[in-house]
This record gives sequence, structure tokens and C-alpha cells, in this order.
Amino acid sequence: MTGARDPEEGAIFEKLLQVSTDSAWAVCSSMGYPNSFIEGLTAIQPDRKMVGRAITLRYVPIRPDLRAQEQAKGSALNKRAVELSGPGDILVVDSGGETGAGFIGDVILTRFIVRGGAGLVVDGAIRDLHYLRTVGLPLYIRGAHAAGSGRRIIGIGLNEVVRCGGVAVVPGDILLGDAQGVLAIPREIAREVADRAYATEHKENFLRATLQKGIRTIDEVYPPSDEVLREYEEFKRHG
Amino acid sequence: MTGARDPEEGAIFEKLLQVSTDSAWAVCSSMGYPNSFIEGLTAIQPDRKMVGRAITLRYVPIRPDLRAQEQAKGSALNKRAVELSGPGDILVVDSGGETGAGFIGDVILTRFIVRGGAGLVVDGAIRDLHYLRTVGLPLYIRGAHAAGSGRRIIGIGLNEVVRCGGVAVVPGDILLGDAQGVLAIPREIAREVADRAYATEHKENFLRATLQKGIRTIDEVYPPSDEVLREYEEFKRHG
Amino acid sequence: MTGARDPEEGAIFEKLLQVSTDSAWAVCSSMGYPNSFIEGLTAIQPDRKMVGRAITLRYVPIRPDLRAQEQAKGSALNKRAVELSGPGDILVVDSGGETGAGFIGDVILTRFIVRGGAGLVVDGAIRDLHYLRTVGLPLYIRGAHAAGSGRRIIGIGLNEVVRCGGVAVVPGDILLGDAQGVLAIPREIAREVADRAYATEHKENFLRATLQKGIRTIDEVYPPSDEVLREYEEFKRHG
Amino acid sequence: MTGARDPEEGAIFEKLLQVSTDSAWAVCSSMGYPNSFIEGLTAIQPDRKMVGRAITLRYVPIRPDLRAQEQAKGSALNKRAVELSGPGDILVVDSGGETGAGFIGDVILTRFIVRGGAGLVVDGAIRDLHYLRTVGLPLYIRGAHAAGSGRRIIGIGLNEVVRCGGVAVVPGDILLGDAQGVLAIPREIAREVADRAYATEHKENFLRATLQKGIRTIDEVYPPSDEVLREYEEFKRHG
Amino acid sequence: MTGARDPEEGAIFEKLLQVSTDSAWAVCSSMGYPNSFIEGLTAIQPDRKMVGRAITLRYVPIRPDLRAQEQAKGSALNKRAVELSGPGDILVVDSGGETGAGFIGDVILTRFIVRGGAGLVVDGAIRDLHYLRTVGLPLYIRGAHAAGSGRRIIGIGLNEVVRCGGVAVVPGDILLGDAQGVLAIPREIAREVADRAYATEHKENFLRATLQKGIRTIDEVYPPSDEVLREYEEFKRHG
Amino acid sequence: MTGARDPEEGAIFEKLLQVSTDSAWAVCSSMGYPNSFIEGLTAIQPDRKMVGRAITLRYVPIRPDLRAQEQAKGSALNKRAVELSGPGDILVVDSGGETGAGFIGDVILTRFIVRGGAGLVVDGAIRDLHYLRTVGLPLYIRGAHAAGSGRRIIGIGLNEVVRCGGVAVVPGDILLGDAQGVLAIPREIAREVADRAYATEHKENFLRATLQKGIRTIDEVYPPSDEVLREYEEFKRHG
Repeated sequence: MTGARDPEEGAIFEKLLQVSTDSAWAVCSSMGYPNSFIEGLTAIQPDRKMVGRAITLRYVPIRPDLRAQEQAKGSALNKRAVELSGPGDILVVDSGGETGAGFIGDVILTRFIVRGGAGLVVDGAIRDLHYLRTVGLPLYIRGAHAAGSGRRIIGIGLNEVVRCGGVAVVPGDILLGDAQGVLAIPREIAREVADRAYATEHKENFLRATLQKGIRTIDEVYPPSDEVLREYEEFKRHG
Repeated sequence: MTGARDPEEGAIFEKLLQVSTDSAWAVCSSMGYPNSFIEGLTAIQPDRKMVGRAITLRYVPIRPDLRAQEQAKGSALNKRAVELSGPGDILVVDSGGETGAGFIGDVILTRFIVRGGAGLVVDGAIRDLHYLRTVGLPLYIRGAHAAGSGRRIIGIGLNEVVRCGGVAVVPGDILLGDAQGVLAIPREIAREVADRAYATEHKENFLRATLQKGIRTIDEVYPPSDEVLREYEEFKRHG
Repeated sequence: MTGARDPEEGAIFEKLLQVSTDSAWAVCSSMGYPNSFIEGLTAIQPDRKMVGRAITLRYVPIRPDLRAQEQAKGSALNKRAVELSGPGDILVVDSGGETGAGFIGDVILTRFIVRGGAGLVVDGAIRDLHYLRTVGLPLYIRGAHAAGSGRRIIGIGLNEVVRCGGVAVVPGDILLGDAQGVLAIPREIAREVADRAYATEHKENFLRATLQKGIRTIDEVYPPSDEVLREYEEFKRHG
Repeated sequence: MTGARDPEEGAIFEKLLQVSTDSAWAVCSSMGYPNSFIEGLTAIQPDRKMVGRAITLRYVPIRPDLRAQEQAKGSALNKRAVELSGPGDILVVDSGGETGAGFIGDVILTRFIVRGGAGLVVDGAIRDLHYLRTVGLPLYIRGAHAAGSGRRIIGIGLNEVVRCGGVAVVPGDILLGDAQGVLAIPREIAREVADRAYATEHKENFLRATLQKGIRTIDEVYPPSDEVLREYEEFKRHG
Repeated sequence: MTGARDPEEGAIFEKLLQVSTDSAWAVCSSMGYPNSFIEGLTAIQPDRKMVGRAITLRYVPIRPDLRAQEQAKGSALNKRAVELSGPGDILVVDSGGETGAGFIGDVILTRFIVRGGAGLVVDGAIRDLHYLRTVGLPLYIRGAHAAGSGRRIIGIGLNEVVRCGGVAVVPGDILLGDAQGVLAIPREIAREVADRAYATEHKENFLRATLQKGIRTIDEVYPPSDEVLREYEEFKRHG
Repeated sequence: MTGARDPEEGAIFEKLLQVSTDSAWAVCSSMGYPNSFIEGLTAIQPDRKMVGRAITLRYVPIRPDLRAQEQAKGSALNKRAVELSGPGDILVVDSGGETGAGFIGDVILTRFIVRGGAGLVVDGAIRDLHYLRTVGLPLYIRGAHAAGSGRRIIGIGLNEVVRCGGVAVVPGDILLGDAQGVLAIPREIAREVADRAYATEHKENFLRATLQKGIRTIDEVYPPSDEVLREYEEFKRHG
């Protein structure tokens, strides 16, 4: 149950759940995307993996005419995003690094969870961390604050390209999160990233096990010598 | 056993223990105090609530003539504050954000705990984190350092208005801490803040439960439509 | 089993394992080394003590001619350091605070652990935190990043004097780490630091216990009055 | 010659050229816009006033698929903005604070100057400062860098609402810059801001002259006592 | 015309006007005050020396009850400080590094100049930089902002010990400012600092002149060899 | 008189004096060195170009055993570097960004100037800015401080590869400085960088002049259309 929309996406999500952001980054980088790891956020659920697709929100500093424009749309930006979301969706929020107000709190996020939301990545702050750290949803945040968004920020854009932790995130990007942070993978290359990172992960598990025997040096194993490669091929054939 | 000095304060403390800093901030803000949430500190006991009243300490950069003046008072500032403290007191320390020396360590804090101290909020550093993180006292700190205060700072003021994490704290303020930080509530409005935040908390618990049924949208529930409000009134009457 | 190379070092390591960085810093400072506590790193295993001796690595910003020079040495800097290491060694890495790339990942660190490595202190980032936070090795890091070193840095020096978290670390320094950070102790004074810090620790445990009885004030106990000192001498004689 | 498009705008520009950002901020704040002063930029021509209207550009971190999209538009974002501009226009650039690459250099800015551009406000960096500081155009920048934009950023939006120095800037905003920074004035209130700030400026000039006589105290003059107000009315009548 | 109150102070001020903050710091440091140079401020009049005595002001984050208390005192803190000031006084302002609002503007500072004020040292911001940079008063500031103090801060203390740029400043301290910043000299040692720094300055001028002849190496001259010292004694006797 | 050691170096220096860091960076980047512009330093003589070759110094945080080792070498690191220097040399100093102490002051720098030193690039602080800003030597510094190096740092390495403003600098690198900062050019590519940057500069001067006529759009001129290129070839032939 990965929240995927179709078998193709499901296959990607399944594989990504078994790889680290490091293995996936290495593939992204080799395919032209070295600047894809979101920096500077704290993982509130470091023991959980996160996989899903990006819905983006953009906030700018508070200004009354912009607030009036948002109100004229009938509902605040975070609520519109949440109602738009479904299983496997992750909210990616560009608050410009502002940590003096939270863009969302426990009530609206409850609705997001009910709709199947897979995680939250915020270059800024959330509210209600006291409660939200207990519900299991993967959260990557720059901070938490008791104040509502109106103290500092106002929502201005839904599903635009945004800046988040030094990375450009495009709506629909596949996101992979683990204890150290979040990788934004362009959808066009996600299948290849998942496949190749999974292969890397499998091999590196073997290499670590080889090293743990205490016989070979790091130069024999990483990158693997021909002999170690043969052992790995053997391992793959026979388990 | 909240450390309150009288039933009035006890009622406030009891209620605040059941609310989040978010709900309390919203009331503070509506009463003219939007700038009351202390920012930038780390909660060392994020699973514990903290409620109490502020004793303030002010430190400035170390200077030998000021150290001589402090010594002439017979005892260091932190020790005088600790002996002054009683049940329900919280030390709020303005070290100007200095994290290159701790203003207090395990021995002096042991005395504070014995006297009933309820917590520590430091815009600066403490020492002995290795030990102090195990004793259960809520700690909100900018950092921890092995060095004693004399490496960088000297105590200069007891129970003055201080700056802490971007907020002015007045001695006697009621403090509420949870996983995301600490709210400084002026004593004059603490009763109303406690009452109204408690009511908010009660209602938002209901709204979250309503959303968890998965039927209503966020726009129906938050803020609640007339129908949801009626359900809530019903809920309050019948549990 | 401390990883010590000889009984002398073993005695030092044993004692240091029982003291805090605070007690040890106080001795270092009194012996002329007040600037010995490494600042600004996060302890990934805050419940574990770390004791060992420093192997240092220096990285500078990436540059192709320097990369070519490193490659000409046959193996990358981190791999050479790991093969050089043995029981009780700790890698101290000066990456100039760069957190946009990790200097080491899970495979190479597995070899370090197999060789008996005692810890890692990095003024910069590592990779594979998802895995490495589960293996028990004490890690003190400024950050973690999915990218390999080549994105930002290149190894330039092994066992030079380095800068790390505001402290100069000399190869062979004895390092002591606890929940709040790492102390770099010059080898020449390590025996005295261990002995005197152990004595301090023993006495302060007694002083805390004395305070916990709730009878004496902090001014009687810290520093101890003649009477409390007599009680402590008594305690030392009879347990 | 203010670059105004019509007499109405011309009257606003003329008056704003004679007021400080302080006087104009005070009016903005009283009309609900306290968060309108752009912070953290350096004025390269601190002796020159800047007045004009905002054209906004938004950049995000570099990413190859976004670069391909920009290239498909036929021309880079900064070039499209420059060809769009005319007399009185000011480019306001949201580069997210990135100072590791310049979004524009001397050649493209020469075209902007030829078209009558009135200034540049960049939450990020420019190139060619060596030359551009000599051409007289008011520049407000976070930094300058020798590298072209492709090292770090890519243009993504023209005339969107943007974040700049902690302020939301809407395309068409009237901007006023002096030695200390830039104020973003919503077009709807610009006339009133110009009129009232001009009146303030006139009065404060008189108050400073009054103080310079050395007879009255600050409490008599600021805010002015009835007597000083009468003197000011007299002054206004007779020069 | 140094603004000194008596011949003793006049002699100190005269000498300090001829020394650098470096020479004076060296004496302060040798007398136990190494932490006396205020860091992180920008000199707005880098070509002017500043000498005077400190009047201190302390601001904390804005809070309505504190504002009411200040208003009850009849006049704002900055105005009270200005009316208190006389020739040779320097305002030293602890705004906690806040640069989002100015604590003072052109009108009130005009009164300060009329009263003979000698300078301004602000760990925070001023307003009206456009005007104030033209009046010649030495200004050392962290920033400038168009907003009045009420946006962020409130005055709380006059002539208390304050923190400013990492240094404790005591009311009455003698301040010396040059292009690189400001030194706070305790009054008790100011005479000796002025005398010894003046002597150092005189000797170093000679040493620089000696080096400019191009014959001696730096090791012969700094510190001076016996021969160079003899030349210096000769120089002192004969000019 | 560029301080070059031989005609080859002289030709490089002459050409670099006529190009901007931007043009030179573009060539460096195209040859594999995009990370060559030193960031975050302030130019004290922004109107002067700087060209020369790097002598590097490395400082680490102060520590008494390291100070004893430096003293055993007979002379402090900065003095040894200065006596080693000759015409065209530039000191590049890695102080790890430390601005709490200056690594050099007016007396030692006077000797450097006498020996023909061409500039100073410091990832840290100098002393005596009051004097040194008047002597014309190009200075690129992170800060200035009245305190001597012993307050914070100690010299540890001469002519090692160092980190400076986010760039690796190798001894012997050719440095080019202008108003916006300093470019470090590997010696192996300096000739080609100088030649190609000079050609770029020449062409861009023509393109700016073309634009200033106000007829062509930026898309016709930058990059130049075939027609503009023909005009440029014409211009080169006939002046």
C-alpha cells in the first residue's frame, strides 16, 4: 500500500522504499541532477521512509492585499491543497525559510492524513508539533512555531515550481525521504533511478557483509575487485 | 501537583497542562500579545509539558570588574536564583544567545530540582547535558557546552525584564512549554488564556475526530459549519 | 575493552569513560587549554560515551587538479585513513563546515568498524545516516547529505593539525565524547586530566547526593563547606 | 524626468523623490502595510534616490529540465524582462538569497539602462560589479559573484508575486529606495503615501531646524507641542 | 574640543584620539580585559575617530504591557537618554541585534547632536540613514531600517550594564572608535590605557618608518632588536 | 610593473589587469574550474585591480602547545611569510572564517609592502584597518578586529593547499581581484584564461557600445547575431 496511482508508479514506489537517498542521489547525479537533495530540514520521524509525489505550495511574506485575494478564493491555500490531495501525495511547501509562523496545524493535517497524504516537506514551520509528532506522518521541517500563518506569511501559489531547501521542486516530482532528508526525483527519470538505486543497494549490502568478515581491505571491496564482483555474481545466483 | 502557589494559580496551571502552545498563543495574540512564543531553542524533554512562573536571570559577556562585583554579593547569580526558587518556578536565562559556555551545571540544578523547580529556558547553554537529560526536568536550551560560565559570561541581573528567543519575558510571567517550544504569558491575562485555550483544545479535539470519520471536508469542519457546531454542542452535552 | 594500545593508555581510557566532558574540560582549562571543547556538532548516539585517539583528515573545496593528485595516490583519503586505523581510533574530519556532501558512507565506515574504530567527529557531513545511526558507532556530525564528497570537497591531508568545531585537533589527541559534544585532550596532559576529572566526578556525585537530601543550601555544598568536605572524606573512607 | 507613465504617476514619483523611506514607511504602516521595507540588501549607490515600478523575476535552484523549458521560450528570463521594460521600471529579483551566482551582468544591464530602467533590487547576486558600480544605476543587492546564473539558478517566473528581502512584492508596486534600502508601496495606496510622507518630511525638516536652535527639548518638539505646531503653521504660511 | 568634563578626562580623550583601537586593545588585554572590542557593527563614518563616555540603553522585544510602562514614564527611552546627555556622551544601545526596526531617527538625533553627543553604537538598527550619514556624527550600527522601534522593540533600561557586539558595556566606560570598530575601556584603567597606547603608537610609527627604508627585516624590527631600540631612543631625544 | 617574475608571467598579469573576474571565471569554468571565485569577503579597495600569485597561510584555533611549536621556529608564521614574499606575491590566509582576532597588523604589513607584496586575501580578519585602508594595498577580508592573533588563532602551515571563501587555493595560483572579489586561477591554465578572458572583454565592450546606440535588442546582441559578429570583425580590423 504505497499510495501509487497505477502499477507503473507502484513499481517505482516499492523499489524506492527499499533504497536510501544516497543510492538514489547517485543515480540522479549521474543523470544530470546533482542538485536534488533538500538540505537543512529536520526529520521528525527519522525511522520512517517516505515515498510519494509532490504537491507544491508557495507562501510569501504577509501582506493585506494578498490576504484579501486569497480569501476571495473561498478557502486558504493549505486547505485547497489538502482537499486536492489523495493517497501518495506529499505537500512541499516553500515558505522561504520563515520559521516565525506555522503554515498548517493539526486539524487541517488530520484531513490530509484521512485523504491518504504520505508526508510533508516544509522550508519553513508547522504548528502543533506536540501532537503531530505522535501521528506517524513523515515530517521534514525547518522549525515549528505556535503562531498561525497570518503572523508572517500568506499563500500565493499552488502547484508552481518552488524552491525548497536549496532544490527546485516541480509538481509531480517523486520524493524519497529517509533519516537524513528528502530527494526530489524528476518524474521522467524516476523509473530508472528506482531500478538502478535498488541494484546499488543490493550490491552494497553484499559489500558491507563482505567487509564484515574482516578479511578484505576497503580497496578490494569498494569499488569491488574482479574477484569480489565474481563473488557477488555468485551471491546473486544462489542467494 | 503543579507547583502552584494558590488555588487561582493552580486552576490556571491545571488547564494549561492540557493545552498546546498553539491554542494558548492564539488567545495571547488575540489579546494583543502576538510576539510571545520563544523561538530557536531545543526541547530536551519533548514528551513533557512544562508549566510554571518565570524567575529571570541576565548574563552579559565576561569582564573582570563585573565578576568582582558579582563575587562581592557573596554568591554567584545562578546560585542566588536557585535558593530564591520554589515549587513551580522556572529559570529563564538571557545569555544573549551565547553557546560557548554553560550558565549552570548538574550540582546547582540538583538543588533547583530539590526546591521544586519546574523547568529551565535558556537563550544560551547549560553544562552537564549528559546527566541532566536523564533527570526529567523540562529543558529548553540553545546549546550545551562543557565550559563553565566564566569562559564567556557573567551574571548581572536577577528578576529583570529579559530578552529570550526573540520574546520579552517579565518576572512572574506564566510559561507553557511543549515539544515545539515555550510561550510566555503575561500574568494579567493568564487566567483568560488558560480558559479560552482549554475551550479551543476541547473543540479542536472534536473537530479532528470529526475529520477522522472521513466524510466531511476541511471547509465544513475548520472553521466548523453551523451543522458541525451543532454536533459539537451535542457532543459537549452528552460526552 | 577500550581499544587502548597499552596499559597506560588503557588506564586513561577507563577513567575517561567514567567522567563527563565538563569535568574533563575543567581540568584542561586549569592546565592552559580552555579552548578544547568542539562546538556545533550533533551527537547521533547521545547515550553512548566515546573515548579514543584522533586520526585527522583535512578536506578542501573540490577542484579537479587536486582530485587528480588524490587519485594518483591510489586510493581516496577516507579509505587510506580507514586502512590506517585500528582499535580505539577516531576519525576527526575538517571539512570546513561544508554540509553539502558527505565525506564517507556506509561501506567505508563498515571497514572502519571492523578495524575497531571508536568514533567519528566531522565538521561537515556524512552520508547514509539512515543506516549508520543504527550501528552504534558514536557519530558527531554537523549534518548528513545524500551526495558523495565529489559534489563539494576533496581530501588533501592525513594526520595534519586540523580545525574542527572551533578547536585545533592534533593527531594523537585523546578524545572524550558524551551527549553534549567532544573534548580534545592533548596527549601530554591526558593522564592528569583523567585522574583529576575522575576525582571531581566522584566528589560531585557525592555533592549531588548531599543536596538531594534537601537539607543543605547550594552555598554550603558547592563549593563544599569544611563540614561537607569532612562528610565527603568520611564517605570516601567508608564507601 | 522620472520615468512616470502618466501625470498621476509623475506626481507620485516627484513627491517620493523628496521623501525618505522612513517617512513613507510610517504612512504604509498606518495604512496596514508595516511589512514593506526590504531588508538585508546593500545599496551600491547610497547617494542616489530610486523611484519606479516593479517588474518581478523569480529564480529557483538550477535543474536541467527547467533550463530546457526556459530555453524553449527563446530567450532567458532576464533578457525577456529587460526587453519588456521601459522608463521607470525596476527589476525586482527573487533568487532566494542565493549569492553563489549572478542573475545578470553588464551587457544585459546596458540594454536595461538604454530602455530607461530605473533600478535593480536583487535578493541574490549580480555579476560585473566592477563595471556596474560606475554606471550610476541604483543597485540593491545581497552580493556580487563572478559566476553566471547557470552555476546555481534558473529563471522560472516573470511578473509573479515574489519574496524579496522579507517582503512580498507585487508587479506594479511603486518602489522607493534610499541609502538604507527599498520600500515596496502597493500601487493602490501610493498616492496617499507620497502625499502624507511629503507632508511629514516637510514638517520634520522644520522640527530639526527648530531643535538646531538649541532652545527647545525633544519633548517639546517631537511630537510638537501646541506652540511648536503654531510656529510650524506660521512657517508654512511665510516660508 | 573633546567633550571632556574635566582636565583629567580631557587628557585621556586627547591621547585616545591619537591611537588606534588596536594599540588600546593591546593595553586593555594586558590589564585583564581582552574581551573589550565590539564586533559585528559597521562604521558609517570610517574616516572619523570617536572618543567619549557611554550612556547605555536596553531594548527588548515589543510587548504592550512594557510599552504602557514606558509611556507612563512620560517620554520614550531614547528621548530621555538624549535629554540626559551632554558633550562627550555616546549612546550605546543593546537591541539584541534586532535590525527589523530603528531605535532612533533624525529628529531625536538632531537634539543629541545639539547637546554635544559624540557618537552612537547600536547593536541593532537606526532609522533615517539617508540623512544621518551626512551629518558627520560617528555611527556604529548593525543595520538601518525604515520602521520605527514600535514594530519590534521597546526601551526597558537606562544606564544599566548592557551587551553590545559581544562585549559588556558599563555606563561611564570610555569608548574609542575608529574605522574597524569600537573599544570599551573601563573608566578605572582609561588613563593607563591612553598613556601606554599612545607610547605604543609613537613607537610603531617609528618602526613602520624604519621598515619603509627597506633595509631591516621584520624580525629585526618587530619586536625591535636592541639596535633598533637604541635608534628609537635616539629618535625620541632628537625628534 | 606588475610584479611578474618573467615575461611569460608578465604577459599573463598584464592581460588579467584588463579583464573582470567575470570574464576570467567564465573561462575557468569552461576549463573545469567552476568553483574558483572566493566568496564572502569585502574589498577594501574596490577601485583597484589586484593581480599576483598566492602564498598561503593556514591558521587554526589557538592552543598553547601549538604556540610553543610556532615559537620554536624562531618567528611567527605571518612574519616568515612576509620575509619569503617578493614582488607580485599575495598572501592568502585560511583563518577558518574567524573574525575575533586579526592575523596581521600595520607593522608587519609595512614590511610586506616594502618587499613588493601585491595584496591580501583573508578568510578571517586583519588588525589596524584604520591605517591599512589608507595605504592602497588591495585587501579582501572577512572582517577587522583590534585583537592580535593570540586571542583566537595560531599559525600552523605555510604554502599548503588551503580553504578560502569556499575555494581551494594552491600555492602559486594566479589571483585576480576586482570590486566584487577574487578569482583563484590554477597556474597551468592561467595563460589561456588571460588570453580568452581578454578576448571576451574586448568583445563585450563592443557589444555594450552597440547596445548603447539603442537600436538593437538584447537578443540580437548577446550572444551576437551573425550581423553583429560581422560588425565586430569590422571593428577589430579598423579600430
